[in-house]
Amino acid sequence: MYEVAIIGAAGFAGIEAVRLFLAHPAFELVAASSDSEAGKPLAEVYPYFYGRTELAFVRHETVLAEYASCLDLVLLAIPHTQAMQLVPRLLSAGVSVIDLSADFRLNDAAAYEQWYGERHTAPELLARAVYGLPEIYRSELAACGHRRAETGEAALVANPGCYPTASVLAALPVVSAGLMDADEVVVVNAISGVSGAGKKPTETTQFCLANENLKAYGVACHRHTPEIAQCLSHLAGHAVPLQFTPHLAPLNRGMLATVTLRLSNDTAEQASAETIQQLYEDAFAGEPFVQLLPQGAMPQSSSVKHSNSAHIGVAYDASTRMVVASCAIDNLGKGAASQAVQCANILFALDEGMGLANEGGLL
Amino acid sequence: MYEVAIIGAAGFAGIEAVRLFLAHPAFELVAASSDSEAGKPLAEVYPYFYGRTELAFVRHETVLAEYASCLDLVLLAIPHTQAMQLVPRLLSAGVSVIDLSADFRLNDAAAYEQWYGERHTAPELLARAVYGLPEIYRSELAACGHRRAETGEAALVANPGCYPTASVLAALPVVSAGLMDADEVVVVNAISGVSGAGKKPTETTQFCLANENLKAYGVACHRHTPEIAQCLSHLAGHAVPLQFTPHLAPLNRGMLATVTLRLSNDTAEQASAETIQQLYEDAFAGEPFVQLLPQGAMPQSSSVKHSNSAHIGVAYDASTRMVVASCAIDNLGKGAASQAVQCANILFALDEGMGLANEGGLL
Amino acid sequence: MYEVAIIGAAGFAGIEAVRLFLAHPAFELVAASSDSEAGKPLAEVYPYFYGRTELAFVRHETVLAEYASCLDLVLLAIPHTQAMQLVPRLLSAGVSVIDLSADFRLNDAAAYEQWYGERHTAPELLARAVYGLPEIYRSELAACGHRRAETGEAALVANPGCYPTASVLAALPVVSAGLMDADEVVVVNAISGVSGAGKKPTETTQFCLANENLKAYGVACHRHTPEIAQCLSHLAGHAVPLQFTPHLAPLNRGMLATVTLRLSNDTAEQASAETIQQLYEDAFAGEPFVQLLPQGAMPQSSSVKHSNSAHIGVAYDASTRMVVASCAIDNLGKGAASQAVQCANILFALDEGMGLANEGGLL
Amino acid sequence: MYEVAIIGAAGFAGIEAVRLFLAHPAFELVAASSDSEAGKPLAEVYPYFYGRTELAFVRHETVLAEYASCLDLVLLAIPHTQAMQLVPRLLSAGVSVIDLSADFRLNDAAAYEQWYGERHTAPELLARAVYGLPEIYRSELAACGHRRAETGEAALVANPGCYPTASVLAALPVVSAGLMDADEVVVVNAISGVSGAGKKPTETTQFCLANENLKAYGVACHRHTPEIAQCLSHLAGHAVPLQFTPHLAPLNRGMLATVTLRLSNDTAEQASAETIQQLYEDAFAGEPFVQLLPQGAMPQSSSVKHSNSAHIGVAYDASTRMVVASCAIDNLGKGAASQAVQCANILFALDEGMGLANEGGLL
Repeated sequence: MYEVAIIGAAGFAGIEAVRLFLAHPAFELVAASSDSEAGKPLAEVYPYFYGRTELAFVRHETVLAEYASCLDLVLLAIPHTQAMQLVPRLLSAGVSVIDLSADFRLNDAAAYEQWYGERHTAPELLARAVYGLPEIYRSELAACGHRRAETGEAALVANPGCYPTASVLAALPVVSAGLMDADEVVVVNAISGVSGAGKKPTETTQFCLANENLKAYGVACHRHTPEIAQCLSHLAGHAVPLQFTPHLAPLNRGMLATVTLRLSNDTAEQASAETIQQLYEDAFAGEPFVQLLPQGAMPQSSSVKHSNSAHIGVAYDASTRMVVASCAIDNLGKGAASQAVQCANILFALDEGMGLANEGGLL
Repeated sequence: MYEVAIIGAAGFAGIEAVRLFLAHPAFELVAASSDSEAGKPLAEVYPYFYGRTELAFVRHETVLAEYASCLDLVLLAIPHTQAMQLVPRLLSAGVSVIDLSADFRLNDAAAYEQWYGERHTAPELLARAVYGLPEIYRSELAACGHRRAETGEAALVANPGCYPTASVLAALPVVSAGLMDADEVVVVNAISGVSGAGKKPTETTQFCLANENLKAYGVACHRHTPEIAQCLSHLAGHAVPLQFTPHLAPLNRGMLATVTLRLSNDTAEQASAETIQQLYEDAFAGEPFVQLLPQGAMPQSSSVKHSNSAHIGVAYDASTRMVVASCAIDNLGKGAASQAVQCANILFALDEGMGLANEGGLL
Repeated sequence: MYEVAIIGAAGFAGIEAVRLFLAHPAFELVAASSDSEAGKPLAEVYPYFYGRTELAFVRHETVLAEYASCLDLVLLAIPHTQAMQLVPRLLSAGVSVIDLSADFRLNDAAAYEQWYGERHTAPELLARAVYGLPEIYRSELAACGHRRAETGEAALVANPGCYPTASVLAALPVVSAGLMDADEVVVVNAISGVSGAGKKPTETTQFCLANENLKAYGVACHRHTPEIAQCLSHLAGHAVPLQFTPHLAPLNRGMLATVTLRLSNDTAEQASAETIQQLYEDAFAGEPFVQLLPQGAMPQSSSVKHSNSAHIGVAYDASTRMVVASCAIDNLGKGAASQAVQCANILFALDEGMGLANEGGLL
Repeated sequence: MYEVAIIGAAGFAGIEAVRLFLAHPAFELVAASSDSEAGKPLAEVYPYFYGRTELAFVRHETVLAEYASCLDLVLLAIPHTQAMQLVPRLLSAGVSVIDLSADFRLNDAAAYEQWYGERHTAPELLARAVYGLPEIYRSELAACGHRRAETGEAALVANPGCYPTASVLAALPVVSAGLMDADEVVVVNAISGVSGAGKKPTETTQFCLANENLKAYGVACHRHTPEIAQCLSHLAGHAVPLQFTPHLAPLNRGMLATVTLRLSNDTAEQASAETIQQLYEDAFAGEPFVQLLPQGAMPQSSSVKHSNSAHIGVAYDASTRMVVASCAIDNLGKGAASQAVQCANILFALDEGMGLANEGGLL
């Protein structure tokens, strides 16, 4: 058994990771921290855990002081800027880190500082971090794991944001294949459930203000924009213009990203609904957690609730030369905690789906 | 008092119209029909009406047989194809009609037949129908009303679909001003509450299948596509390519349309967030039911619930040359029944907002 | 026009009162206060008001300092203990008060101190306060209004809690008629929408923690218990034992109270579903806002949404000698703001339903 | 591996059982039937199953004709009256049955005919059926399993209704201990999510009519009444009067039953919050799926979502001599499908929690 701790375990992504690691056959969860809930049993904060675990929240520093020496892995589920304070200490102690914050997702410290308005305090680690989207960076993740096993060098994984996960998967086949003109804008409209806004009670998460309501937010300025653009540009081999508009809808869990991608004139001459469906099938063949739906079907977020699955549907509109692809994930699952488990499995050379089977997804 | 009847009054749009006309100072609701609920008091089907009205549903034919001679106006809230059967009979009887179905929205019978898969049985009336979006066709509506008053010629209004209302209003200032290249695609992503799917219990409207769920549907084939394109093309003065993708989210009432509009290179050189905000302010100045939000604010559907208001917010992204505008309406209000009342007010030369003040919109 | 101000107008009950008084034909809303939102236009906090009012929130003290001399009425929608600080000042200034807090609902200062854990600072006003449930205290309310008109003596109305309104109305006919043994417990189980918990973001009102969830709370200790018991005891003419259990369910607005009332053996011999239905019909005959549903029907909270109506259904179970009655109200309407308007109408000798017609209640 | 089939697998309880048995280490799901969906892959009806199973629905008769000879167990998730047609055939073929319908829950055919309005066609099997609530009938279930193993005699389990499961567990300690007067009425008020109404689209399950709504239904006539009364009477050793009132609230899954139980005068003299808490602790000690919450805490349905757990909280009100106990379950889990798996585990002498660990319960 590998030993894992979760720092920032009382938030929605952190506690989902707790649930998954408690049931994981190859990991033992030795500590879960929360500075605000320290001392309380997990069950007092999340009654689900009554009868399931006696674990109590400890303080973040307790994890570093008392457990670091025996840990194989730490999941960080604390806010950005806090994460980059802890990462160097953990790596130095030889503990691999999967960071759910944004601190190591952007390659470029300047971009980080522009979008997050904070100086990056560990820019030297940016090159070491691997972006934890296995559908693109599986071999890099495995290589880190290999190094870890061979040399003891701790790995650093920047776990993707929820919007980037859904958006990039939906666009991947078209962008990878270079089917668009270079200056064509990838338009992404996405909808998130409210858990994406975190556990902290705010006006955004006030039940009566979120329920029976729809809104766009962060228009032209959401912090997941550079992360999506970085991924798409990596896939395309050139800078990809992106218009990303997130929306909020009244549900707990679930995310849907709909991308519209205009094919170049030349490409469009050969394109049809069938060729585009085939393109997507080929792109995701063998992917254990990406499910391309049959031609004509579009995904529903409820089908992937509590799971690590991404469901994708695609259509082609010859009249506009546009591919419309929609990807559904659970924002706390494939969009956060279970994707972290998938990355952990790869890092530790386990079966990629270990501990991730048969969750939720019905009603 | 003008006398009005509603045919198809037991559906969600129809019953909303009932509620509005019961309280309207200038109209008397003399009949409400539903073939499936005929004979039942309205209150038995919608308990809200206990203590408010003794009216009972009658059959559609009863309205034509017993009331047509005294009616000034009929609202049709029956399915497409059924509406075009009744419209000629009503117009011949001198009764003006506001039709909430799609039967008279498209100018072109061939387009109707292509998108709806049915032969149009009254194509000669298409030219007579006015599209009931007052923000574009106010003077045409008033002219019909004038003719009605002068000559007794019955008016025919094709009340817009909910998606076209929200989408067209969001795009109107940019498209009217001709700020895009002619072959640039207007991309509309919209989200609707479940009441848009009608009252009939189906898998789409099954609570447990719609709740905690998000999905795109009708991708590249939704029937509101040609209606939106027709409006935008009318505004632009040329055919406007459109990619329209509707989504379903778990709320009763509410609709949000987010449009992304790429400015031409020349235009973009002069554009800024401020100029675009000004463009929108100018476009909607004096509109009684369109509310442009302050720069930086985006609309929420809950703010316009149970009302005839459309709230619009707009942003400009210089990096992509894209205007992102979002319009929130109540799909049963400005998207259906209260827009019909607004049209009725114009037709009958009443104050445009009569009977439409101070509804809902809080929680 | 009477002049009214609302102190505590940014909360859910307060803002609902704002909406109602803005549209009321006989009142002019001259000020709306909120210490936390002071200076902001109402529309900035509740975008519904864009285009409807230019009013901005002022501080509570501003209302007293600048408006008190011209005011006829103040609605207090501030927390208990804060209300009893302001009431003496307002009454002294000759301003009538409708207090939505609990400070003047209990006749007995000792009971207040027991249940609320605070010393009552204005116990001498308790006898002057009238409990604002018109279905029981209409003549007392009217008498206060009469005195106000005749002598200028300011009236003090303690607006009922939401649970007491629904619970007392459901139990009223049986309890008033003395059909139960004196030591029999009235069992009330009630369910509230989340807006009852107020606007402040807390764990209780966190969307993801309230959504898809049901719970009982305040079991055997909810502060509405003595208020319900006081009303029932007043109706019965003796102390009535009460077991009140409130529950929380995931909706914005709406409240349902279900009471089970065991008839005495003697009474039960004469009782049947028909006699009980008749008892309820007689009890509420002529009540403008209580709607008894036909025999066999049970009320739905959605039917009274955004309205001042109370819908009541009743059944009789001969096998247990129990009457089961269920009352649905909107917790922010008849349970708070619109009931305050109803009281204001009585106080000022207006039509009791003025400004309260035709609101919401459909979907 | 034991072989199991599910008849009526396309409904909400049936498909939940499919999900559980697909992941169960000791059972192999060999067939899932639905007459209305026969021929379709499960994934087409519930997209969750894409990538998880290739199984397609077969017709009910196909299960009997083609699989009965090899089956160890059949779960029936078809409506009452249909179940009692199949049970004799399955038992004769030596196949054990867990019946999720009501057909074998009541001991008395006359009671069945009174409450269900249908003649019972297999009354001779009523005595053979064991009521599948392990917290009461664990040894009887195990004995059936033993006979099955020893003699091959097929077992028949009547899986409890959702309301009876929650209601009986909440009342069990008080009723078993005989703490109430014999003629005192047990008052149960319960709230269910909409999935309890089944998958069939109806007015009850129409999203817009169920959402933002609360109602009582089946007052004094719900068919779970005799089932609850039978259980309580069994526990008490005498007929227990019961007033059961179910309510509907807008959530997918989740059920809460709140029972009020008035202690006899003698008993109440010794009672306190602490003794009642202890009574409950003792009653459920060692129960693997019943979790008594700490004194003062009340259960939330979200904590047990997607699980087989029952969470119970209890309070005592000395002023009324009443115990108020509240039990939360997932109506499709412990209230249906996972309880059936628990029964299956007992029948086949497996660990009682096999295949039931670590499901859902967070958001």
